Order: sequence, then structure tokens, then C-alpha cells
Amino acid sequence: MSAIPEDFVRKTGRLSEAVTVPFPNSRKIYVQGSRPDLRVPMREVAQADTPTSFGAEKNPPVTIYDTSGPYTDPEVKIDLMQGIPEVRTAWIEERGDSMQMDGPGSEYGRQRQKDPDLDSLRFGHIRPPRKARNGCNLTQMHYARKGIITPEMEFVAIRENLRLQEFRGSPLRKQHLGMSFGAALPSEVTPEFVRDEVARGRAIIPANINHPELEPMIIGRNFLVKINTNIGNSAVSSSIEEEVEKMAWSVRWGGDTVMDLSTGKNIHETREWILRNSPVPVGTVPLYQALEKVDGKAEELNWDIYRDTLIEQAEQGVDYFTIHAGVRLPHVPLTADRVTGIVSRGGSIMAKWCLAHHQESFLYTRFEEICEIMKAYDVSFSLGDGLRPGSIADANDAAQFAELETLGELTKVAWEHDVQVMIEGPGHVPMQLIKENMDKELADCYEAPFYTLGPLTTDIAPGYDHITSAIGAAQIGWYGTAMLCYVTPKEHLGLPDKNDVRDGIIAYKIAAHAADLGKGHPGAQIRDNALSKARFEFRWEDQFNLGLDPERAREYHDETLPKDSAKVAHFCSMCGPHFCSMKISQDVRDYASSKGIGDINVAVETGLKEKSEEFRKTGAEIYHKA
Amino acid sequence: MSAIPEDFVRKTGRLSEAVTVPFPNSRKIYVQGSRPDLRVPMREVAQADTPTSFGAEKNPPVTIYDTSGPYTDPEVKIDLMQGIPEVRTAWIEERGDSMQMDGPGSEYGRQRQKDPDLDSLRFGHIRPPRKARNGCNLTQMHYARKGIITPEMEFVAIRENLRLQEFRGSPLRKQHLGMSFGAALPSEVTPEFVRDEVARGRAIIPANINHPELEPMIIGRNFLVKINTNIGNSAVSSSIEEEVEKMAWSVRWGGDTVMDLSTGKNIHETREWILRNSPVPVGTVPLYQALEKVDGKAEELNWDIYRDTLIEQAEQGVDYFTIHAGVRLPHVPLTADRVTGIVSRGGSIMAKWCLAHHQESFLYTRFEEICEIMKAYDVSFSLGDGLRPGSIADANDAAQFAELETLGELTKVAWEHDVQVMIEGPGHVPMQLIKENMDKELADCYEAPFYTLGPLTTDIAPGYDHITSAIGAAQIGWYGTAMLCYVTPKEHLGLPDKNDVRDGIIAYKIAAHAADLGKGHPGAQIRDNALSKARFEFRWEDQFNLGLDPERAREYHDETLPKDSAKVAHFCSMCGPHFCSMKISQDVRDYASSKGIGDINVAVETGLKEKSEEFRKTGAEIYHKA
Repeated sequence: MSAIPEDFVRKTGRLSEAVTVPFPNSRKIYVQGSRPDLRVPMREVAQADTPTSFGAEKNPPVTIYDTSGPYTDPEVKIDLMQGIPEVRTAWIEERGDSMQMDGPGSEYGRQRQKDPDLDSLRFGHIRPPRKARNGCNLTQMHYARKGIITPEMEFVAIRENLRLQEFRGSPLRKQHLGMSFGAALPSEVTPEFVRDEVARGRAIIPANINHPELEPMIIGRNFLVKINTNIGNSAVSSSIEEEVEKMAWSVRWGGDTVMDLSTGKNIHETREWILRNSPVPVGTVPLYQALEKVDGKAEELNWDIYRDTLIEQAEQGVDYFTIHAGVRLPHVPLTADRVTGIVSRGGSIMAKWCLAHHQESFLYTRFEEICEIMKAYDVSFSLGDGLRPGSIADANDAAQFAELETLGELTKVAWEHDVQVMIEGPGHVPMQLIKENMDKELADCYEAPFYTLGPLTTDIAPGYDHITSAIGAAQIGWYGTAMLCYVTPKEHLGLPDKNDVRDGIIAYKIAAHAADLGKGHPGAQIRDNALSKARFEFRWEDQFNLGLDPERAREYHDETLPKDSAKVAHFCSMCGPHFCSMKISQDVRDYASSKGIGDINVAVETGLKEKSEEFRKTGAEIYHKA
Repeated sequence: MSAIPEDFVRKTGRLSEAVTVPFPNSRKIYVQGSRPDLRVPMREVAQADTPTSFGAEKNPPVTIYDTSGPYTDPEVKIDLMQGIPEVRTAWIEERGDSMQMDGPGSEYGRQRQKDPDLDSLRFGHIRPPRKARNGCNLTQMHYARKGIITPEMEFVAIRENLRLQEFRGSPLRKQHLGMSFGAALPSEVTPEFVRDEVARGRAIIPANINHPELEPMIIGRNFLVKINTNIGNSAVSSSIEEEVEKMAWSVRWGGDTVMDLSTGKNIHETREWILRNSPVPVGTVPLYQALEKVDGKAEELNWDIYRDTLIEQAEQGVDYFTIHAGVRLPHVPLTADRVTGIVSRGGSIMAKWCLAHHQESFLYTRFEEICEIMKAYDVSFSLGDGLRPGSIADANDAAQFAELETLGELTKVAWEHDVQVMIEGPGHVPMQLIKENMDKELADCYEAPFYTLGPLTTDIAPGYDHITSAIGAAQIGWYGTAMLCYVTPKEHLGLPDKNDVRDGIIAYKIAAHAADLGKGHPGAQIRDNALSKARFEFRWEDQFNLGLDPERAREYHDETLPKDSAKVAHFCSMCGPHFCSMKISQDVRDYASSKGIGDINVAVETGLKEKSEEFRKTGAEIYHKA
């Protein structure tokens, strides 16, 4: 056992309390699957009863999709030094198609493991990596295509359903029909539906066999829209402990996956800490680390270094790799007249390599070899959009779409290996050009899941790009994008801190949920309906607790009306106690229900004066006693 | 002259510096119209030259639509005690169709003016009100229909054009085609086009003759999308001085109109202060004040009190009135099964009145009389959506659409009087139901401008409803909504403070601008292009200054890289100095321009090795010296 690393997570192995405190009035529940070790975590939010004046009824608890892993489960003792509990180990082992190795298969991984200077920094319980037995393919897509429903598939089926059956017949379940733009949302997500979507390539379950801590999730347009958050240190700022805490912070607020985009020192060790403590899939851009290994000189990159980096990271457990294999040499000159050129780091590195060598990129020419590596661990492709537009002016141009077509070609190759694929998308796109992106992706990439960064719908709001992009993200999510990569307020300006991460995530949870409603995802509206009912009935605590950020809602409320009594008050600070539309409309409702809806129309037609006198007598007291 | 009021604006008559400090590197300019007193204010943002490494060129100043009035003009001495300079007095007087009265025509106005207890609170230079001479109609719509182009119309034509002609041929002018959903955006806004749009009722210029301080603006879907901000005290919190400062703060950040929604004490006096210092149209909901006059008892409201309130406010200079005349008695029972009933204050007051009296609302039955008042001062209608949905569940329901049809009927009546009209819209609407709102408004209300509150696209994010609603606002703005009523982060929770107002405004400036881009408003993209070019060329200051909130952009940047030298650095904190995609892509551009675009394709085809050697020799140094 190694010593506790210096300067790591406040040197305690614990996260700050803000990251682990359970949400108010919520409890962690587990829905039992078909086997004892298949337990799907959810968050259940209890509600108060409706006050007498609004009809005195019980309000059912609302179940919320829960990405926060064991961090919000008071039953689990969190010790970052040990890593979080393993969820999938038995599932992986019993398939019998993988084997545990003696140690790292990558050259770089071996070096890092042996280096005594890193002892103080290294995670203390590194497992020997697993990989596929010779000739075996162990991807979820491979199983799906063989007709096998894995525990991972059953897990995500239960997870997507959110105990919807408990709301059968409940008014909370009522919802508007969505507009699904060609998606085919099932009324109930079954394990078989999951298997079928994965087999077709329309959805992926990123789940490296070396990341058994993972709680499986699915990315596909016939499922709930997911969001990704980015963390990672850079040469200029931030450190390991900040990044691990950011990961836990991200999943707390609803990040479905997290990308470690570190470009600074000790990124191998940082990644190990993140993976051993991450309940969500972790993605990386292996090119960033490969570039560090050649001291930042893009033209010195080569296949051997890159290959070793893929193996190194796959053995640590990275669940998906962004690979910019679509940046081909002939695409590069298409960017010359752009306003903002190539804004993707990976894209610009490969463009430079292509120019320097006057060759097709090794990511493109070695793509089949990359697939061989991916399928030995079940790492999913996130085919990078290295030529995405970095400004409104450059949206939907020849460079962007040429690359997208290449990504489609590569998708077919990956699928021949049963390797799971999603496709990255832009970027900066004005509203009227967003749909073309989605349509073209579905057509060119054979319905592989789309994973977009925003898009930002204008360039003119640095400091607020979580908002410029949430607009585009909601729109493209509605059109069918499966996962939205978040953008924080610091985009284009600096490195996000914890507050920025929270702001970015909530903006994206909003976009994803707005898209789910728009698509008509079954049951998505239950939470809206429950919150609005609570709002109408002045159940303040329930209104806060059902929201995406209960803490901030309460804080904002308390700025004007801080007393606890205000939270049972049947008014709020906007209108004060004698001027509340909610109260008046409850009055209307009481009247209508006591008299029958047709009654007023009758009154209108006959002009019976006694009707009005009757109302004055019975209804004059509009502020009901609770 | 009255004494300086107690407790008013820090008792100095001045606003805080944050409200009046000019924006960085910006200057106030005035574009001269056809007459000496027609000078249209704009903000001109100067730009630095492009650095040598990016091609050393001059960058033209960018002109920005400027709502901030004299507050950001260092030449104008601001004294809130005097009010801001009058812009329109000569225009109004020389038309000869109005006359100055001896004093207030409203009973309440006279009472307030005489009450010695109010001396310390009263604005010191109240002008006697003007009204139409007998038989005259002095609305902008009336002039427009007679073929007259008023100075107000010329003013807005110049204002909407933003000196676009100076960008003719500039690469900054290049833009994507928009998708205008039936709008007919002109390539140049002429005074005649303005006149025609106002005559058709497709646009309004809210401009009460008693608000000569106003800088005219236009609301219509063939013009730039506008935003409204709300201010106003309530019984629970806030005071006069906060509200006046909020007004100035609102216009600083880009509020195009401001609604004073006060429901507390001294709302007559607060309104006078706001109007005398407001360069933008001021809207109110006269019903709120009428209700105060009957001690909050909705059933005691009557036509006389309401009528006197309309006259009182029209004489002060209110530019548009929200009037909930569409809440008819038969509509009320349609709300009984809603999740959130009636959420509009005005709507619920009128619903209660209708039930209590079992009569049609006096706003509906007296509508022609209301028109007579409106046209004597040129107050525009904002026909209120008293039955707008307050939750996703209630969107697009029978109550909402029944009221909308009534608003269309009333629009026709108002237009018979040449009274200008806009139509208020929701509210809470999921994405897939938003377009129906716009389509139905255009059809039912004969293309009168639509003015919507958001809509919020989900209910589940209290504390972040500026974002849930910016998504819907951008979408409905793109579809054709002319003005967006902002929502702050405190919506549903408490009264917004100055920070909330700023956050709400910027979110809505983003939505409005995204919509302008989506519609293809001529020249809207100039600012995006200029900012993105600055970003690409690492002109940090220009990037900040061209943004919607230069102060916050700079502050965020400085959190990570505070030194001034970092603002001329050709990298940023995200990637550090040795890993910058912008730098790499400039390299690609230099290469492509020196070699010709076809060159690389030739190289690919012929496989000439010397090409790559040549690149290595000439291009190996990617970090250009500045």
C-alpha cells in the first residue's frame, strides 16, 4: 500500500462535504434487477402532502435518474484511497472472454508504474489490467449482435425506465406528445430494446472491462439525452486533487460521462485516480497525451507512440476515446478561408502532422489496427470532429461536412469489428443551420449516436457561453443528438472552477431535459408536473427539492424571505400576501368544481344575477385557511 | 422646485458609477437624420489592428445598437432630479394635433399632485400633460396610414440599419442565409418600410406624446428582436431608488423597453421618476394600480377607477399598457383542470372579477372606450395573456387559445381606431409546442407583433429560469416573435437584484441575437464575425469589448491569467502557450495561402516527398514571432 499522496484531495482521501451531502429530502434507492448483484441506483425525492386548502392529498415520491454514484449514498463509506466499489467485476469475469494480465501491456504504463519518483502520487491499489483472450471480442455491440442481453444492458434498461410503472394512471404521468424527428421512443425500455439498439449501432454503452466501478449508462437518441462534462488540468493551472473533486462534483450535478482532457503533468496518474473513483464512463483524447510524449511537437508524433498510448489508457479503464481520424490531408486546405480556422486541438494537431508529412494521418491509415485495440477492452469510439466550426461564420462548411462523411466511412469500419461508435459534432452553429447537422449526421453516419459540443448559437457572449450553447444544445438534442458536451461560462476565457462546472452542468441538464420533453420521452414530464403542482400548492420545499439545483433555489428564495415560516406561506416575495394569482386561481378552481364547469356558461347566457350574489357569499373569502 | 427627496438614489440625484461608466473602448456616436434634431445614438467599438503574425491589417470599428440613452454619453450631465434631455418635444409640438393641459386630467393624478405629504417624494419638474386636440388622432399608426413618415419612423429606420453600408464588401458582412418563417426582412430598413409596417399593424413604435425623453424604437418581426425587462417594487420588498437605478441598469445592458410592475406604495411617484429618466419605452399593467385603489379587492374594481388610472398613467407618459381584455367569463372555467391554474396576476384579478359579478369583464365590454383614451396620447396596447400557461402541463390548452382568439378580435377593434397593438404570449411551453404558438398568433391576430415571456421550456430548474426560458425565447424569436420579455434567475423564487437583472438581460440579448441570426437579419452577423476574428487573432481586449458583457468576460479571463501581458499573449489559460489550436490553424492558413489551395491535393495525388520536406523547412516554426 502506498502512502497517502502529497497534496491530494486535502490529504484526507475524502471529498469536501459539498460534494457528498445527500440532496434534501432525497434518498438513494436501488432497483433490483434479475440477479442479486444487479442493483440500479436512483434518487427518490419525497414530497409533502397537499395542504388542506388545496385539497389535502398525498403526493407520491418522484424518482430521478441518478448519476452521482456512491457519493450520495450514506451507506457507502467513501475512501478515495481505495476507490469506489466495483459494480461489474463478476459480470466481466463470468463471461470468460477476458484474462487478467501480469502488469501493464503498454511500455509507458510500465515505466510509470516502476518510477519511484511517482510513488507519492500513484493510486495505491492499481489492479493488473484485463484484456480479451486471444481471438475474443468482448464489446457490448458484439454481444448484442450475438443476441446476448448482458447485465449492462439490463442495468441501463431499468435505469432509463425510472420506475415509470408506479405513475401509471397518475395525473403526473400526463404529458404532451413529443416531436421525435424520426426517433422511435419505446413506451417502456426493455433489455431487449437496449440490445437491439446497441446491435444496430444506434446506441452505445461505453464500458471498458477495466472500469468495473462504472454504473452502466446508454447513449442513443431513443433514450434520455445525456450530458458530458470536461475536466482536466492544463500546463497553466490546476492540479490532481482539483480534478478528482471536479469529477465527483460533476456526477453530483448530473454529468453522465466525464472527459479527462488533461494536458499538463502526471496525466497518467491523474487519470488512474479519476477512473478508480468514477461511477460514470470516462472519455479521453489520447492524442493529447501522445503529444506530451513528444514534447508538444506534432510533427514528431508517430503510430508507435500513439498505439502505446491507446493501450496504456485502455488498460487503465478509459471508456471512450476521442479519435480525430476524420481529419484527412485533403480536408486541411478547406479550412484556409475560415474566420477561425481549426479550433479543435486534436484537429489542429493532426492537420499539422498531415501537412508536415504530406501524408494521410496515421489515425486514418491505421484505423483497423485501432479497432483491434478498442475491441480487446471494449473502448468505444468517439469519432472526433477535428474540423468543427469555431465561429458562426464557419458553420456547416465544406471542411466540416467533408470530415463528417469520412467519419461515416470509419463508422462502417468500426462496426465490422463490432466496436461501438459515437460521432462528435459542432461547435458554433446559428439556429437555422442546426438541423442540417443532425440530418446529415444520421444519413452519413448510419444513425450512430451524435455527441455535440453545444452548438453555440452566437459568438458575441463570452462569459455566457453556457447559455449561447444551451440554446443550440436543446435544439439539436430535440432533433436527435444523444449526448451534449457541456460548455461552462468560462469557455473561450479561462479554466472553469467548481462554480462554473455547476453552472455549465445545470444549463446542460436543462437543455437535455427540454429535449427529452420535446421528443416525448415517456415519463420525462413527471418531474415537471410534480414540481409545478408543488409550486401551485405553495409547497416551497418540494419545489426546491424537485428542481435540478435544490440548493440554489432555496438560497435565492431565502434572499428575500429567509424565515422558515415563509416556506409554508401561501405567497411569495414577488407579489406579497394579498396579491397572489395562484391563490386567486385556486379560488376559480374551487368554484368551478363546486358548481360544475357549465355553470358559468349558463350564468353568462341567462344573466342570472343570483349567481353572482351566491359567489360573493361563498367565495368572497379567497384566502383559505390552511 | 421640490427638495431632493429623502432616501432617493443615494440622495445625490446620481446613479452609481457602475451604471454610467462607458463601455471599454467604446464611444457614443450619433447618426444625423434629415433634420438637425434627429440624431440617432449608437455605440461604436474601436478595434486594435491585427497583429503582424496574423497579417497586420486594420480592423474597422463595429457599431452596436445602443439602448443606454444619455447614461453612457460623457457629454451629457446626468441629473435625475431634472430628468434626461427631451428628444421628441419639437416633433410632437409641430404636428399641431395635441395641446398642453393645465394639469392632470385624472382625478387620482390631481390628488397625488396636491398631497403635501408627497412633496418629499415627488419628482420636481412635472410637466403639465399633453393630449390630442378634439377629434385628432395622433398615433404613429394613424400617421403611417395617412402616408406620413414621422421623425420617429425615420429615427428607427436609421437605428435598425446600424451603419451597415460601411460594411459593404467587408468580410465581416458575410453571413449565412436565415430562415425567416414568413418574415420579410428588407436588405435595408428605409423610413418608408417602417411606415408601411406600422400602417399594416405588423410593427409598433410605442411612443406616448407625454414621454418626449424617449429614443424611438420599433417592435415587429421584420426588425431586430427586442427584449423587455421588468422592474417594480412590491409590498414585500424594494424601494423607489432601487427601481430607478434598475431602469438605468436595464438599459445599460440592452433592455429595449422596461415595464414598471410596481404593486407597492407610491407607485404613481415611482413611475414619474422612471419616466422622466427613461430613454426607452415604459410599459405598465394599469390594473395593478387600480387594484391598489380598491385595497386589493378584485371584485370592487370598476370601470371608473380603471378609466381614471389609464388617464393618470397616459398623462405621465406610459408608452404601452398591458390590458387583459381577453379574459372573458366563458374562458375562466377552461382553467379549472389546469395543473397551475391562472398564473398571470392580471388574468387572475379579472377572472375573479368576472366570477364575482358573473359578467363579462369591463376591459372587454369597454374596449372601444379604452381605445379612445389610448389614441389621445398614443399609448400602445400590449394585449395581455391573462390565461397563459404556468407550467409545461398547461401549454397550448383551450383556455390559452380561446383567449388568443379574443385578442385577435380586439386587435381588429383597436386598429379601427388606429391604435397600435402587440400581443402577449406565454409562458411555459415545451419545445415541440412553441411553433404552434407563433403560427396561431400570426393567424388569429393578423400579424400584430408577438411579445412573449420566454417561454420556459421546462419547469424543473428554479434558480435557472433565465436559461430554461432563453432556450424557448430564442426559438420563438427565430419563428417571428418581435419582443421577448426577460426572465431572471430569481423567477418563481424572489425579487431580482441588480445582478439578476444583468443575468436575465444578457440571457435575453443572447436569445434575441440568436434569433436575429436565425432569421437572417441583415448585418446581424457582423458582430459575431468581428468578435470571432478578434478571438482567432488573440486580440483579447477586442474579444471582450465586442461581447455583450465586456466586464464579465474580462473578469473571467483575469481569474486565470490576470496580468496585462496575458491580454496580448497569443495563447490562453485553457491550453497554455505550447498547445494552441488557433496558432496551429494560422499555420495551416499561411501555408495554404503561400502555396495555393490545390497544392496539397496535388501532393496527395502525386505523393511528392519534397512537398513535405519543403513544409518542414518553411513551416516548422509554428509559433510566429509577433
